[in-house]
Parts: sequence; C-alpha cells; structure tokens
Amino acid sequence: MQHLIDFDQVTLAEWDMLLDRATAIRKDPAVYAESCRGKLVATLFYEPSTRTQLSFQSATLRLGAQVVGFSGTSGSSVTKGENLRDTIRTVSNYVDAIVMRNPMEGAALAASLFSEVPVVNAGDGGHFHPTQTLTDLFTISLEKGNLTGLTVGICGDLLNGRTVHSLLKALIRFPGNRFILISTKTLRIPDYIRNILTAAEADFTEVEALEGVIAQLDLLYMTRIQRERFESEEAYRRESGIYVLDSAKLALAREDLLVLHPLPKVDEITQEADEDPRCRYFEQARNGMYIRMALLYELLHHERVKQGFPKSRGEGRCTNPRCVSVQESSLPTLIEGGRCLYCDKEIKQ
Amino acid sequence: MQHLIDFDQVTLAEWDMLLDRATAIRKDPAVYAESCRGKLVATLFYEPSTRTQLSFQSATLRLGAQVVGFSGTSGSSVTKGENLRDTIRTVSNYVDAIVMRNPMEGAALAASLFSEVPVVNAGDGGHFHPTQTLTDLFTISLEKGNLTGLTVGICGDLLNGRTVHSLLKALIRFPGNRFILISTKTLRIPDYIRNILTAAEADFTEVEALEGVIAQLDLLYMTRIQRERFESEEAYRRESGIYVLDSAKLALAREDLLVLHPLPKVDEITQEADEDPRCRYFEQARNGMYIRMALLYELLHHERVKQGFPKSRGEGRCTNPRCVSVQESSLPTLIEGGRCLYCDKEIKQ
Amino acid sequence: MQHLIDFDQVTLAEWDMLLDRATAIRKDPAVYAESCRGKLVATLFYEPSTRTQLSFQSATLRLGAQVVGFSGTSGSSVTKGENLRDTIRTVSNYVDAIVMRNPMEGAALAASLFSEVPVVNAGDGGHFHPTQTLTDLFTISLEKGNLTGLTVGICGDLLNGRTVHSLLKALIRFPGNRFILISTKTLRIPDYIRNILTAAEADFTEVEALEGVIAQLDLLYMTRIQRERFESEEAYRRESGIYVLDSAKLALAREDLLVLHPLPKVDEITQEADEDPRCRYFEQARNGMYIRMALLYELLHHERVKQGFPKSRGEGRCTNPRCVSVQESSLPTLIEGGRCLYCDKEIKQ
Repeated sequence: MQHLIDFDQVTLAEWDMLLDRATAIRKDPAVYAESCRGKLVATLFYEPSTRTQLSFQSATLRLGAQVVGFSGTSGSSVTKGENLRDTIRTVSNYVDAIVMRNPMEGAALAASLFSEVPVVNAGDGGHFHPTQTLTDLFTISLEKGNLTGLTVGICGDLLNGRTVHSLLKALIRFPGNRFILISTKTLRIPDYIRNILTAAEADFTEVEALEGVIAQLDLLYMTRIQRERFESEEAYRRESGIYVLDSAKLALAREDLLVLHPLPKVDEITQEADEDPRCRYFEQARNGMYIRMALLYELLHHERVKQGFPKSRGEGRCTNPRCVSVQESSLPTLIEGGRCLYCDKEIKQ
Repeated sequence: MQHLIDFDQVTLAEWDMLLDRATAIRKDPAVYAESCRGKLVATLFYEPSTRTQLSFQSATLRLGAQVVGFSGTSGSSVTKGENLRDTIRTVSNYVDAIVMRNPMEGAALAASLFSEVPVVNAGDGGHFHPTQTLTDLFTISLEKGNLTGLTVGICGDLLNGRTVHSLLKALIRFPGNRFILISTKTLRIPDYIRNILTAAEADFTEVEALEGVIAQLDLLYMTRIQRERFESEEAYRRESGIYVLDSAKLALAREDLLVLHPLPKVDEITQEADEDPRCRYFEQARNGMYIRMALLYELLHHERVKQGFPKSRGEGRCTNPRCVSVQESSLPTLIEGGRCLYCDKEIKQ
Repeated sequence: MQHLIDFDQVTLAEWDMLLDRATAIRKDPAVYAESCRGKLVATLFYEPSTRTQLSFQSATLRLGAQVVGFSGTSGSSVTKGENLRDTIRTVSNYVDAIVMRNPMEGAALAASLFSEVPVVNAGDGGHFHPTQTLTDLFTISLEKGNLTGLTVGICGDLLNGRTVHSLLKALIRFPGNRFILISTKTLRIPDYIRNILTAAEADFTEVEALEGVIAQLDLLYMTRIQRERFESEEAYRRESGIYVLDSAKLALAREDLLVLHPLPKVDEITQEADEDPRCRYFEQARNGMYIRMALLYELLHHERVKQGFPKSRGEGRCTNPRCVSVQESSLPTLIEGGRCLYCDKEIKQ
C-alpha cells in the first residue's frame, strides 16, 4: 500500500495484514511505542475535525513518531492562492507521511499524485473517509470474530452519510452478509449505492421501523440524523424520534448484538441504552486509534517516491462543482468510462 | 491522587509528596526527561489560555511524554452537539491523562466522573484553578522555607479573582498565617470566602491602603485589576492607581519581602519596581512548570480506571446558570447539604 | 551566535559553520535525529504563517527536540494587555529557544533583550526574515558550489519584498556577484536598498524585461507580484504578465540556470515551466528545513543567559508607527546615528 485514498483500493490481502497488525498493537501497544521513532507525519486539516485529528495524532505519537500540521485554512498558504499541488510538494519535503482532510471531493487522490510520501485520506468532502471504514471493520472483526455471514442493520440517515456508504461497499466484499437498511423514506440510500448493492448481488432490504427488525441483527450501526436535513424542527423530531435507540428496543435484540456508531452522537441513543454492554462505540473509537497505528506503521516504512507530473487520461471535464479537479486548475484530467476518477461522479453532458 | 479538581481535595500528605517531587525536578530536571516516555496527555482547552496551556505542554514534554489537544471550541466535536460525557469517554480512550479548561463551573469534576484516566482541572469558569494554587504554594515554600507563620498581603481585585480565593483557602490549612486583604470597598472578598475564613478562625484584616501595611508583610500577592469591573475609565484609573506597586512603596517593605503575581500583569507594577529582586513572579511562572511536572508524573503512573455511570446523590436541581450540571443534561445530580457539588453553590429555592 | 535577528549580524565565519552543519545534516539527517533530545523550542507566531511554522517545527522535531507555541494572537495573553517583555520573560522560563514571528518591526530584537534563551527571528513585519536568506544562500551554495562571481537576476516585486532586500544585502557580502534587477517602474527596489548597493560598490543594473537578460543569468530569483499592489485587476494582469516565467523564456536561458522562488507562488511560473529541472524551489524549501536544523542545533547548545534590563542608548524617539519601540512602551530607547536600531529606520525630525 502506497497511499490510502479509499477502502475500495485496499486488497483483501492488505486488509488482512492491517487487521493482524492492529490486533497485535491493541494487544500490546508498548511493543510499538518506539517503532516509528524519527518519522514525521503532517496532519493537514483544511476543515477542522477535532476527533479525527486527535485520533491520528495519538496514533502517530504512540508509534514514537512526531506530528506537525494545521487545522482550518486560516493562515495557511492556501489563503495566499497557492494550489494544492505546490502545498503538497512543499509539505512532502518536510515529512514522511501526509494525513489530509479537505472539503473538495477527490482532494486526497489529487494530493497523492504529487506527494513523495504516502497520503492518507482523512475525509474529502462528502466523499470518502476510509479510516472510519477501517475502524468499523476492525471492531466488527474483533467483536464478531469475522466479517462474513452477518445480518447488519444500518439505521438513520442513509442518504447523506458517507460513513454508511463506505461501510456498505466494504462489507459486500465479504461473503454471506445480509443488510437491513432502516430509514425514513426521505433518508434512504442514494441510487448509486443501491446500484452498487444490486450489481454485487448483495442481499439487502429497506425498511422503516427499527423495532420490527432489531431481533434479527448481529450488528446495528446507528448514525446521527442531522436537524438541518429537515424542513422544520417538528418534522425532525417526529422522524428522528422513531429511530432513537432505547432500552425497550434493546430488550427485543439478541444478547450478542453489537451496536456501533461513528460518533459524535447527539440524542439518537438514550442515556439508559448508552449503558448497555452491547453498545461498543467507545471501544470502536479506541480501535480507531489502533487501526490508524497499524496503517501509519505500514506507510511510514515506505521509501520516498519521486513523482513526475501525472499524465491526463480521458477527454472532457468533470461537471461536479465540489470536485477537486474543477476547483483546482493545476490537475491533470482523469476520466474513465464516463466517470471522473477524482470524485467518482458521472460526467454530465 | 486520582484527579486534581480542587486543592481542597489534596491531602497535606499528598501536598508534601508533590512538593518533594517538584523540588527534586527543579534541582535536576534532566533526571526526569524520559520518566514518562510513551505517555500521552490531552490538553482540552474549551477556552483558550495560551499561558496555562504552554505551561502544561512544556511540563508534559519535559517528562518525555507527548501532547495532543485543542484550544478553543471552534471545530471541536462540541459544536456538533456532543455532550461532555461522550467527549471525555472518547478522548480518555486515546490518552493517559486529560488536562481540561472549560468555562462551565464544575466541568472538571464532571469530566472526572467519566474519564478512565486522571483529569487535571486547568480552570473551570470563575471557579477553581488548582495548579495556580500549587504554583503559589510551591514558590512560597521555596522562597520562605515553609508555609506557616507568614504575614500575607493580598492586593487588588479580591472579589473576582479565583486565584486569590483558592490561595486563601489553601493557606488557612497551614498554621500561624495572618492575612491582610488590601482592596477597594467594591473589590473586597466575597461573603462566602469571608465565611470560610471566619469558620476556620483565620487571622485576617481588610484594609484599603497598601502603604500602611506593606512593612509588615512576608509575602505580597499582587493581582490585576480589570478595567471592565469599573463603571468608567476614570473610576478605574483612580482606584487602580492606589495599588500600583512602585519603588516608593517597596522602599517601605522588608528586605525579605516576597512579591508574587499570577500573571499576566498590565500596569499594576511599575517598570522600576519590576526590576526589584524581591519581585519573583517570573520564577513563580517557572516553578509552575515544575509543579505541573510533579503532578503529571504522579498521575501518569496511575492505572486506567474503568468507570461505571455515577449515581445521583441528593434531591433537586442546581440553580447556578454557569454550572455544568445545568448546562449539560447528561450528568447525575450531586447535591449535598443544600450545595451543588459541581459548582459549590447553594441551591436557591 | 546567541540569537538570529538579521543576517547582517551573522559573521562569515558563523555562516561557514552553519553551511557545513546544514550540508552534513542534509547528507545524513539520521545522525542528528536525537542530537537535541530533551530540548524545547517555542514557536510564537503572532501572525500565522503555516509554511514557516511547519518548516521550523519539522526542523525542531527532526533534531529530537520538542515544540510548544501558538499561531495567531487570539487567546494569547497578548489580548489581556501583557507587554512583549513579560511574555518573553515568561516563555523563556519554559523553553530552550524561541522562534518568533511578529508584525511589529524590530520585535525579534526587542525579544532578544529580555530572553534568557536564543531568539530566532521568523519575520518581524516587512522587516527581516533571516532564515529565508539562510535558505536561499544554502541552496545557491549547494547548486552553484559557491556564493561568488554569480550573475543574479531578481524578478518581480522588488519594492515590497523583504526576501529580496535581505538576499541582496547578503549576496553583496560575497565578492564578484553582479545583479540584474528586473521589475516594472513602480515595483523597483526602494531607495534605501539602492543606497546600500551603491555604498557597497555593487555591480547592479535595473531593467524591465526578463527576456533580454535571462541568457546571462546563473541564478533567477522569482517573486510573487501581489494583486493588491495594483490599482486595478487590469493593471495587475498587464504588468504581472510580462514576468511570467514560461518555457519560451526558459529556452533562452543557460542549461545551468538555477531558478529559485521563496514560495508560495501563484501564477508567475507556468505549469510547463514548473516541470523544468532548472526550477529548484521545492528543493529550496527542503533545504530551508535543513538550514533551520543547523541553526537550531547551534543555538540549542547554548547556556541560558540571565538578562538585566538593557540600558537605553541615544536620544529621541522612533517615528515609525510600525516599530516595536513605538507600539510597546516597555522598551529601552535604542537610537544610533539618527536611526532606530529596532526597525532600522531614520528618525524623522
């Protein structure tokens, strides 16, 4: 693995290697405490995300490596008009790996084209957030023993949650999983995800009530429903209320149910339910640090790679205004099969 | 010591241990330079305080430990509506100790209820700031040889200064101290502190002029008088002027007077007086780093503690709008003897 | 060397020492990876500069030392009215060296008067930025083998660029260099720099076209022309356009031309030209980290120096509103030969 842009590009062999490493680290972190001494990681957070940044910084420091970086664009060279390419070429001079969060879709891929050091995507717009997916898979694997043959409920905002889309795309790569997608009509998964599930011949159903299905689940993945997705406070309360996980609903579930949540949560899980030992999202957060340690450990043992300027592929121009290739004029065109390779969106004619 | 929320909860035996450790560190810091290698400290500063944060970060790094954290809430998960409890449970997954500054009164105590790792209160509203008290006591002890039998003048804003209140409460625990409280009528100590002094049978007097008493003092503790406490600029200048420490006033004082100040200062000490060798507030700042090293050294050698959800105690609800238990709905009630244990305020009926 | 305020104060012997050290570090950085273990550097950036701060932080960490500091004044003690002197006296208690960027001219010199530890000027207003000069000289020296006998073109905004002024003042200290200053009439070097060049009997010419001279150059130093220097967008495009470095201009240049740029750049170098192997500004950025490592290595091996309050020299008062001695009342007067020693400006009567 040279970079981590999306979990799609991680082979199952690479995943197994990460899983083994993270398991070993979690068992005895002290063994790895000096394993990356002398290495330096940049956390370039063009939009702030305290939680993700803390997790990456903790992971880096617990390997004995060091951190530089910024949070928010104010004061960064960006505001002086520098393009992403120059920023990456400069920063990759100083450090041994770059962890980047950026609101532009495809920004991490773009960065990887110019970086002499590994790039980790810590979120690029509403697009990918692969270390959350690694965290989810690692936790499921630890708690369930494997990633196959599971009945997986995913509940909440399935339309806007990139976490959910990535998790679905990841879990269909493992055989025998069955998906129950629980949401309001307005917050169902988008068509392009439904198409992916269908193309993969995944076993999935879409339902509206959590109570009716919770008894079947091995895993319940809860998500936050955001107020701003609804027209009124009243509509928000009415719809979000039906997915609140409480003790009554948990009473219907199996003893070995695993409840996960990408966090932060607001009020989608009651305080009483929060105490239920089946709710394992704080362990999940902790696992997120271990899997990031495993990832950085692999990447920091790479050689520096000299990059030439990448060649354009395909014709035309991406039409997605949030795509990095539209916002940054310095990038080569990368279009294949009618889709932009940066943002993964179809090119509209 | 599991946490440091307030100096009231530090036993004199614990204080002696901290004092011995800080003295040893100050004598030869190099001995401790690797003493906490592999440990990680989070500095969660919900309101920025550069000076306090620099001191804690320097202390942590000089022990060989590492720091993660944030300053200011912008971009933190807080703005996404997460409660303090979830933030602490998440962060305590990543680190070995939490240093927190938060504008809500009682926030540090609240954090300690949920944290698996030690919590250090670096300021919770106008409430406590115990590491400043440790700094003051350490400096007095170093300069005077002990903490007993001293004539202590405290000058300036005695109404609003939490530093002053904590110092008074700390020094009455040591025998034989006499207090001369020097302020304008409007900035005298609040009633609840006067009640504490009276209940402890402390020897104290309240005066308005510094000149009349400075000759008696072993210690003069100066504080900043804030412009915003006065109705007009003119009233501010008239009143604050009479407490400015200058060479004329210092000429009346003993040769072994010790002048301290929590810093930052503005113009309450003239530049000439500032050069007087009796003014030791920069040494005091340096000592602040050493006593924080001693504190972190003790706390970082603790085992991680699994926390259950704490039970409520007492009936009713705190009425102080700045109290963490009023602002955060996720907390158990903690009321005893008609007082809220978070913010230490009486419950109004 | 006790501090680095301006390159003028660096002797050629000191420069040779820095050059040798930086060359050694660049050759084998691993040798220095633990060379400053236990040391602590403060980066006090009163105005943010991500790039410079990242370079200093990377340099510090790659020596095995640690970093504390801030970026931007919000929340710093400064906003509570503390003067620079108190801030420096406090911070120099915690750390082993201070790297400071401050918008006031002469701020670094002022800081050095009060600091017990070495101060490095990372930019003081439009005044000095000596580590950029060190970076430039180091890169020229590496690429050209020496700093003498070169034909140096400097192109762009020569009026406002402190980088350019410092580089000129530095290169005239080495024999046999010839300067071709390429700019619009409105962006020519200021009179005081022209006077310095004339006084040093430097060989320099001022021209308007890059094409006519590029063939003669050993070194072309490009700078950014800022939109805000022009009255209209149109005027900006017309004038800035004639200095854009493109493949056509590079075709006229020698094979061994060296193109440098202090970065960030915007559109003064075309993407095609950017790929030309003669453009070495990203290597220059990397060299900036190595020369900062060399500098910090020297400074961090200094003993702590106890400072008395410095005596005033000269009569009168600086008249430059951006000078630190005008903005900070706590500083001694330093005037010599009719010039303020803080900001280097003449005192107007």
